[in-house]
Amino acid sequence: MSVLDEVLSANEAYAASFDKGGLALPPARGFAILTCMDARLDPAKYAGLSEGDAHVIRNAGGRASDDAIRSLVISYKLLGTSEWFVIHHTDCGMEFFTDEVITGLLANSLETAALGDDGFYDVGTGPGSDHGQHIDWLTISDQTQAVVDDVVRIKEHPLVPPRIPVHGFLYDVRTGRLIEVPVPSDESAA
Amino acid sequence: MSVLDEVLSANEAYAASFDKGGLALPPARGFAILTCMDARLDPAKYAGLSEGDAHVIRNAGGRASDDAIRSLVISYKLLGTSEWFVIHHTDCGMEFFTDEVITGLLANSLETAALGDDGFYDVGTGPGSDHGQHIDWLTISDQTQAVVDDVVRIKEHPLVPPRIPVHGFLYDVRTGRLIEVPVPSDESAA
Repeated sequence: MSVLDEVLSANEAYAASFDKGGLALPPARGFAILTCMDARLDPAKYAGLSEGDAHVIRNAGGRASDDAIRSLVISYKLLGTSEWFVIHHTDCGMEFFTDEVITGLLANSLETAALGDDGFYDVGTGPGSDHGQHIDWLTISDQTQAVVDDVVRIKEHPLVPPRIPVHGFLYDVRTGRLIEVPVPSDESAA
Repeated sequence: MSVLDEVLSANEAYAASFDKGGLALPPARGFAILTCMDARLDPAKYAGLSEGDAHVIRNAGGRASDDAIRSLVISYKLLGTSEWFVIHHTDCGMEFFTDEVITGLLANSLETAALGDDGFYDVGTGPGSDHGQHIDWLTISDQTQAVVDDVVRIKEHPLVPPRIPVHGFLYDVRTGRLIEVPVPSDESAA
């Protein structure tokens, strides 16, 4: 079965016993989670969410990008969330390359770059694109510091009210556990 | 119990029976979903995903923002996904305001704006911030067209290879069903 057929078949089964049609738009439990797109993470499962409970924002790295902050501001301003979680994770793909690496790989080829046993990506053959140099890829060199940086970036944003608690965590992909990342108060605008 | 304690307690329970510690970083089923942060959506449930299966990218509206495209490019270039889904939904909050509305509301106050029975948000009282005018909020005026626009924006991006199928869908929050949104071929770069 194709991926498309698999997804549609799974959706048929979900819809057949669907009983959540009466949920309200604003999150019932009043909070939002910003986390990584990583396939191993299921925030509904690792944080105990049912449909209707909380906003979930995800991108490569779970980074506090401008777009994530756009989403968080809409989340609190129009839909009433009042507490946020930034949840990165161990073994994140964003630790394994730099802007220079991905920009170079994309310039060489738009095909997937296989990661060799030597820890280097193959270079690939064209066609490629130089457009990668215009993107801030938001890679991560220190996982704990990246959580701190993102919590601080959110708290210091001019559209974020200081009353909103922003918790920082790492999700351990080996154990399923959330590990709190303390944010030093002198790095926080709160 | 506080929201923080509830999340940590749910995570304790998840970790106690966790058996996914051996999953590989690249998505096992080789695809990615871009969808809305809306609390009513659980893409793992509506699309039949287990931990490890697929990348999930979420923001306000499920829009093909620069940040979503950053994530999709990392997804295929370094982690091998080869098929993508753009899944917006009915009754999306992004249909209920404009850039002017949210910019004005934020300028008046950083408190949550309650939506009145008359369909208008209360204005609120300060302090506010004018920073909202610097953000493209990516609001939606026509839900089906927004899916088409986002599929086309992704397919036409210089870093996206034409070989990747990009499927457009609306998720119906009343029924749990995925409704396909055809993308006219003259609007597609493929």
